[in-house]
Amino acid sequence: MESRIIRQVRSLKPLIHCITNYVTAGDVANMLLAAGGSPIMADGIREVEEITSICRGLVLNLGTLKEWSLDSMLKAGTKAAQLSHPIVLDPVGVGASAFRLEAARRILAEFPCQVICGNASEIKALAKGLDPEEGIDCTPDSVLSGHSGGVDVNREDEVSLDHLDRMCRMVKWLSRRTHAVIAMTGAIDLVGDEKQVYIIGNGHPMMAGITGSGCMLDGVIAAYISANQDRVLEAAALAVAAIGVCGELAHEKVVGQDGGLGSFRVHLIDFMSKLDDRQLNGGVKIEIR
Amino acid sequence: MESRIIRQVRSLKPLIHCITNYVTAGDVANMLLAAGGSPIMADGIREVEEITSICRGLVLNLGTLKEWSLDSMLKAGTKAAQLSHPIVLDPVGVGASAFRLEAARRILAEFPCQVICGNASEIKALAKGLDPEEGIDCTPDSVLSGHSGGVDVNREDEVSLDHLDRMCRMVKWLSRRTHAVIAMTGAIDLVGDEKQVYIIGNGHPMMAGITGSGCMLDGVIAAYISANQDRVLEAAALAVAAIGVCGELAHEKVVGQDGGLGSFRVHLIDFMSKLDDRQLNGGVKIEIR
Amino acid sequence: MESRIIRQVRSLKPLIHCITNYVTAGDVANMLLAAGGSPIMADGIREVEEITSICRGLVLNLGTLKEWSLDSMLKAGTKAAQLSHPIVLDPVGVGASAFRLEAARRILAEFPCQVICGNASEIKALAKGLDPEEGIDCTPDSVLSGHSGGVDVNREDEVSLDHLDRMCRMVKWLSRRTHAVIAMTGAIDLVGDEKQVYIIGNGHPMMAGITGSGCMLDGVIAAYISANQDRVLEAAALAVAAIGVCGELAHEKVVGQDGGLGSFRVHLIDFMSKLDDRQLNGGVKIEIR
Repeated sequence: MESRIIRQVRSLKPLIHCITNYVTAGDVANMLLAAGGSPIMADGIREVEEITSICRGLVLNLGTLKEWSLDSMLKAGTKAAQLSHPIVLDPVGVGASAFRLEAARRILAEFPCQVICGNASEIKALAKGLDPEEGIDCTPDSVLSGHSGGVDVNREDEVSLDHLDRMCRMVKWLSRRTHAVIAMTGAIDLVGDEKQVYIIGNGHPMMAGITGSGCMLDGVIAAYISANQDRVLEAAALAVAAIGVCGELAHEKVVGQDGGLGSFRVHLIDFMSKLDDRQLNGGVKIEIR
Repeated sequence: MESRIIRQVRSLKPLIHCITNYVTAGDVANMLLAAGGSPIMADGIREVEEITSICRGLVLNLGTLKEWSLDSMLKAGTKAAQLSHPIVLDPVGVGASAFRLEAARRILAEFPCQVICGNASEIKALAKGLDPEEGIDCTPDSVLSGHSGGVDVNREDEVSLDHLDRMCRMVKWLSRRTHAVIAMTGAIDLVGDEKQVYIIGNGHPMMAGITGSGCMLDGVIAAYISANQDRVLEAAALAVAAIGVCGELAHEKVVGQDGGLGSFRVHLIDFMSKLDDRQLNGGVKIEIR
Repeated sequence: MESRIIRQVRSLKPLIHCITNYVTAGDVANMLLAAGGSPIMADGIREVEEITSICRGLVLNLGTLKEWSLDSMLKAGTKAAQLSHPIVLDPVGVGASAFRLEAARRILAEFPCQVICGNASEIKALAKGLDPEEGIDCTPDSVLSGHSGGVDVNREDEVSLDHLDRMCRMVKWLSRRTHAVIAMTGAIDLVGDEKQVYIIGNGHPMMAGITGSGCMLDGVIAAYISANQDRVLEAAALAVAAIGVCGELAHEKVVGQDGGLGSFRVHLIDFMSKLDDRQLNGGVKIEIR
């Protein structure tokens, strides 16, 4: 299955409209190209509908959000939804400001997103923000404690083997609530819908040591699902595993060359641009619950 | 001639005012520095006139365009034109939105640009947009077919040996129409005015695999022509050839080191910062029609 | 002392709110991570107060300034000051536009900044702009001549051994005027308050060949002083020395690998992410006047 999903991306070269933050926009574009897609970044209110119309998918990333960029996101998303283009929402730092939470709520209220992608703290903050009154055991409040520490995950929110079952329940709960596939990244990545969760053991801690790992993943997921709309869950899970495999390979290369976080970022894109079936099939660690 | 043009750049170190998109702004600044110029990025309406006054050249790049950034471009361009500073216009994705086309038209109507730099799809879309009624054989409609696929060139718009003559006619036609030197990038690059076209065989397909190759070229062209205002056509052609030579060298290094698209971008800037007469004179492939 | 300062940074991992330009925002975030801090970039007026409240420090960088981003800076700075968070102000290109000078003056009038970080031309332009009537020998006018050439330092403003004493007097004068530690970068870096100046001999000219060296330093200083609020002067001086040591190591590696400015930037972040006590204690060149 992996090979077929990737082959589709490389042959369709899906054009992805990204409305994302200015901190990592260049990295997102480069990673999207390396993954076989084609990026177009455009957030002017005057053109977002027209731009998104010629694309196959849309990324909405809440980093460095402003009133006007939210307006552009809402306009682009509404148009993309009319055209049945898959939408990836990344609620960056949604636990860190009321404005970002409000933005995520408005987006999810106005049109469906196919994938919501964030770290455990963000996913939890979003889930809490959507249904603060929810009281059942699988709600985020009972799953995790602690407050968001900005755009990085809190240590206590990290997915570990201890609370894996509860985390899977949260993913399923949020998916049921939003009708989106949930991609929750961390030491262990969970990608699931309301029925099943892929547990992905790829990746390396160095990925949290550079900015934009999550933002780059948004682009890769968008490329993968846009080219494989009949299997969004599998494609999103494979995107997460693929960037994880690249993170492992990049880490090995950094160690071998006595490099650091600067070259890790370069190698991460290198490996994505060279990723082949052998590396992917040999490297992917996915278990389904 | 090559050596003299480059020597002028390195000795004058021209300060270039760039109003460009946030996706590749850092790459543009770094490439401009590597090429021997000095960048200043500023797009606040309150300061663009003052900033452009202390510079030697101006880049206007339509990526991630907004109403307010267009206002800043118009203000900066008007001032730069009053001061006889050369202006480089890059109509990024001009075929992808009516807003960008309108912006390019307004810019070209309000002040002269010395160089217009874009891929074949962008140059064609601009030419069509300027004179939709034009019916002669050298117009773009008869030259190329297909619609813009975002910010990347369409395969059918790529310059190939088959339709080289027709493409040269389009370049000359657009130059006559705009009084600008046209730099049309692709597998084969064409840089021409209304009388002659330089056909440049440098470059490598990997340059299309990273974001910002075109935007970085804007900066290099601006540095080259600002330091060589008595020979804008030759300087623009050499800028295109120079970045192409760096692309070839970067590709070789990537292959030798088993790298990918991430390290290609790093090497591209590396080679520009080290480019010497020997590499340039030995590597440049330019033919004049 | 060096070891203790760095150990504090690595153990506290201070979250730093950055309102900075879009040209180098990604580099600032990556360098901040490499230095042991954690970045959050946010400039939306609706959220800057809330964001800065969960952080330990704030960076205000005037590159690509706009009316609205200045409003966000003033709001974030006022809140940060109420919470006693240290603030780093980088008056990028303050000599190049009246708008940036006005912005710096408003910021310094509305709340105290713990560190002001800039190259010699910027520091001089700021000092002149704050007190144009000042006539004593240690004022900038008597110290330095020449006009700002954009965002880079003018050659005549460079700190050299010739006018070191006068430069130290200017640093002390500006510190007395603003109650901030002044970090003036160049071939020789000066970091001082009204009583003493650290003269730092680390760094390499290649740092001026890439964009964002100064912006990245803002982030490192913010991380260092936020984690060491009882010794701001020492921490700021060590931050400057640390990035300088990394610049030296990166230059060595570039030479060894026949690289250029592209790989220099990658290595600079690499070395910051690996910086250890041995490298730092062995490499730092600081003298106190």
